[in-house]
Amino acid sequence: MKLNVSATLTYGFDSDTQVIAAIEAARSPDQTIISESLVISPDAVLVRDQDPMTGERRFRTALSGQVQISYQALVDNGKRIPLVPYARQHDWSELPQDVLPYLLPSRFSPSDEFMRFAQREFCAIEAGGARILAVLDWLHEHLDYVHGVSHAQTTAEQTFIDRAGVCRDFSHLGIALTRALNIPARAVSAYALDLDPPDFHAIFEVYLNGGWWLVDPTQLAPVEGIVRIASGRDAADIAFLTSQFNCQCLNQSITVSRAQDDVGSDDAGQQAA
Amino acid sequence: MKLNVSATLTYGFDSDTQVIAAIEAARSPDQTIISESLVISPDAVLVRDQDPMTGERRFRTALSGQVQISYQALVDNGKRIPLVPYARQHDWSELPQDVLPYLLPSRFSPSDEFMRFAQREFCAIEAGGARILAVLDWLHEHLDYVHGVSHAQTTAEQTFIDRAGVCRDFSHLGIALTRALNIPARAVSAYALDLDPPDFHAIFEVYLNGGWWLVDPTQLAPVEGIVRIASGRDAADIAFLTSQFNCQCLNQSITVSRAQDDVGSDDAGQQAA
Amino acid sequence: MKLNVSATLTYGFDSDTQVIAAIEAARSPDQTIISESLVISPDAVLVRDQDPMTGERRFRTALSGQVQISYQALVDNGKRIPLVPYARQHDWSELPQDVLPYLLPSRFSPSDEFMRFAQREFCAIEAGGARILAVLDWLHEHLDYVHGVSHAQTTAEQTFIDRAGVCRDFSHLGIALTRALNIPARAVSAYALDLDPPDFHAIFEVYLNGGWWLVDPTQLAPVEGIVRIASGRDAADIAFLTSQFNCQCLNQSITVSRAQDDVGSDDAGQQAA
Amino acid sequence: MKLNVSATLTYGFDSDTQVIAAIEAARSPDQTIISESLVISPDAVLVRDQDPMTGERRFRTALSGQVQISYQALVDNGKRIPLVPYARQHDWSELPQDVLPYLLPSRFSPSDEFMRFAQREFCAIEAGGARILAVLDWLHEHLDYVHGVSHAQTTAEQTFIDRAGVCRDFSHLGIALTRALNIPARAVSAYALDLDPPDFHAIFEVYLNGGWWLVDPTQLAPVEGIVRIASGRDAADIAFLTSQFNCQCLNQSITVSRAQDDVGSDDAGQQAA
Repeated sequence: MKLNVSATLTYGFDSDTQVIAAIEAARSPDQTIISESLVISPDAVLVRDQDPMTGERRFRTALSGQVQISYQALVDNGKRIPLVPYARQHDWSELPQDVLPYLLPSRFSPSDEFMRFAQREFCAIEAGGARILAVLDWLHEHLDYVHGVSHAQTTAEQTFIDRAGVCRDFSHLGIALTRALNIPARAVSAYALDLDPPDFHAIFEVYLNGGWWLVDPTQLAPVEGIVRIASGRDAADIAFLTSQFNCQCLNQSITVSRAQDDVGSDDAGQQAA
Repeated sequence: MKLNVSATLTYGFDSDTQVIAAIEAARSPDQTIISESLVISPDAVLVRDQDPMTGERRFRTALSGQVQISYQALVDNGKRIPLVPYARQHDWSELPQDVLPYLLPSRFSPSDEFMRFAQREFCAIEAGGARILAVLDWLHEHLDYVHGVSHAQTTAEQTFIDRAGVCRDFSHLGIALTRALNIPARAVSAYALDLDPPDFHAIFEVYLNGGWWLVDPTQLAPVEGIVRIASGRDAADIAFLTSQFNCQCLNQSITVSRAQDDVGSDDAGQQAA
Repeated sequence: MKLNVSATLTYGFDSDTQVIAAIEAARSPDQTIISESLVISPDAVLVRDQDPMTGERRFRTALSGQVQISYQALVDNGKRIPLVPYARQHDWSELPQDVLPYLLPSRFSPSDEFMRFAQREFCAIEAGGARILAVLDWLHEHLDYVHGVSHAQTTAEQTFIDRAGVCRDFSHLGIALTRALNIPARAVSAYALDLDPPDFHAIFEVYLNGGWWLVDPTQLAPVEGIVRIASGRDAADIAFLTSQFNCQCLNQSITVSRAQDDVGSDDAGQQAA
Repeated sequence: MKLNVSATLTYGFDSDTQVIAAIEAARSPDQTIISESLVISPDAVLVRDQDPMTGERRFRTALSGQVQISYQALVDNGKRIPLVPYARQHDWSELPQDVLPYLLPSRFSPSDEFMRFAQREFCAIEAGGARILAVLDWLHEHLDYVHGVSHAQTTAEQTFIDRAGVCRDFSHLGIALTRALNIPARAVSAYALDLDPPDFHAIFEVYLNGGWWLVDPTQLAPVEGIVRIASGRDAADIAFLTSQFNCQCLNQSITVSRAQDDVGSDDAGQQAA
């Protein structure tokens, strides 16, 4: 699917502040950047990073006063296939070396705490894709999507107890349960079609059958409409802005829409008929 | 039931240490102390406290070096009635004033964190005794009784995630869920028949139908064989030894047995037949 | 000092909600209620509680919809004496029985966690009042008074790390450090003169030399201008509103002023001269 | 310095368990493996990993029953230079891309919680090496080295409050404070000369002046005698054994000694004199 994505972010910085921003669509194998633009106003000197393994991009700079960051891109995210129940679970010895860190507990997804619960709840279900689909069902059934009950430091433990949160919280608990089942999982930030209101989205990926599968535990956005930005162990790694000192978000506007020349492509055959 | 209970505790104190001990059977309305003895060796000056409301007793003293505390009692705990499903739940306005603190969250039973879970899980069941019996069933079904996974600072939150613990942990989670359902609950320390190995027992009480009902979420000891020691908001209040500095527990021996002249009283009719 | 205090609180309740309110000035030995009024609008049936030991008062009722609670009182708080350095520290065995619970760790003031720090930092200072004055100096020097960095579940542990908070947080850490020094401490809610902006105030009391001494770790309000409302182990016990379900605070207005006939009384002698 | 290091670890596995082990000396630029051997008994099929950036090595395998893992190596760790006060601190924009993750908070070193404390305590000291040396002094002065007060899930927050711990805890707090000062820091596992009793050692590295500097916050082992094993965000990344299920450590023996042909090399000139 071809998607137009944009983010316009306005921040206020009290003093000269070093930042790392992750808002550009990843140049990952599963999506193509057709065109894009990044404008910082007032102008700033950027250091651009691209991860050689994942194609994910960040930029570093120092900002002060009121600053607007604008990013626009036209992205073809190809054909994302939803997780299938028969996706095979790997032994640790079969995993690529760079996937291993995603087996480990992390701050917001301390999977070691959930070993007993995950075994009790999901081990009757066949290993692999089916078991992760059961985790996603469990999250959807047991968590309420509620703003204001969680914050930037909320962990999967708190969400598991409180039974409510936003996309970030659903994903952290999903990642914790997946890792507790000995399956690698990583947090993903994304632009997402159909999100209401539009916002950055936090979802996650599980490693099964030789590859990463995108899943959305909130069921708010179809994986077909996802444009990946960054991935990491949990939300700390994929923040769209990491800053040296506190800063104020003065305005944030995200848009995601299907590109004009893409609309209708799915039912082109029908129209011809 | 008439029960002989005893505790022999040996501690080592590095320096002169102030302590508060709660090991004596309560002189509460529901149990009668027929005889008892308390011996500290070497001898120590004791300040004796008895709670005017509950009849619970503690003693205070200062100890140093190696000290043995021995307590023995013959107690008639009357007839303890297990919680009935039709025990009525009170509005807050109907509760006695001294019961109100047991509605509030406490350190090890932070009931405010469990509001959403408790509502979701138990509100289909009729309010009152039936709902608490459902909580007890839930605890029995979802928690493993395991030594070594928890410690003296473990909270109900951790037990809820880890799904395992000992009597103290079962009770803390039971108290948290009960209070989250707007029913007063308090922690109780006790001597308990049939506990294997014998030890102090931690259970809890819920306030329904105008009175406190003893319940054992571990289902390890029948309430009929319970001799109450102390009650409080959670384990911090009912520790059998609170000491100013760290001390070493060198030995601990608890025994609970049915008194000779009590054995057989239940089946007296059968013997006559 | 004679003080006029008032609180006007407007809440919104989604459904019929049981509440416990602690906003009335305590009828404690150290302050006299000269006159007072309590109005709930629309009218509600109240259960009134008064603690026989402390004279602290709470009322219970069930509220729904939008409700205004108005309380006004003229209170003579006598002569509050600031803590003196030579106030003697008691052995546990000397304490009144009802003071003992305030030695124990509680949820927001888990004093057991601070034993080593308290010993290291304050044990060079003479036991008793001087040591607590050193704790108060430490709090004032090491904590920033900042709104928005803490919330209703913030513990003394978090405040100790974050080094910032509001009156509630300063008090919780002060209570934790005091108890870690084997001195009883309890949280107190109050009306306070000179608070800017006016609000309920959270301070604490330490038990030394046979009595409770009010201290304000924020140094925002002189103890002479304090009207006590309620006391307890920590903030959970002294909330001005405890409600069965979440409710919205729509408006809150607190005023505290020196009574007309009291102003000038301190320097009456001078005026006469 | 040339060092002989060895580890003999005996584990018991209840069932077939996947493990990742990090016990081999790193093939990092700052140390040369002269010879080594790794023996698993009974024999097991290993997957060997070597990080292309750091030369750190891990092996993966599946183990069951009682297993002994033996590693021996002769390593020349070159000349490790202790951190110098004038080592320059970098702006974020100057850092290599692969160093950036070590700026971020992690589970056991949540640096974001310590921002205010770190600024208050260390910002009077010149940025760079001098400031980190002040952090190391602070840790040495304020923490007690005590076994048994911490466990595998203890965070820097708890150590900061409790003021005691072991090498792992000292390092976690050191890493948190370093990152809170905007300097990259990472956890390092190592063999260490002079450790008594011998054990794996947990230390950390700070990134200053274009490179990583090893520091030991416990001051128990000189950096000259360190043989690096693995590095990561915190202890979770550098565990010497990560296992799918719980396993029992039945025996562990570590030895580190100066190689025969290395002893005396430092004072060779003196001997000749």
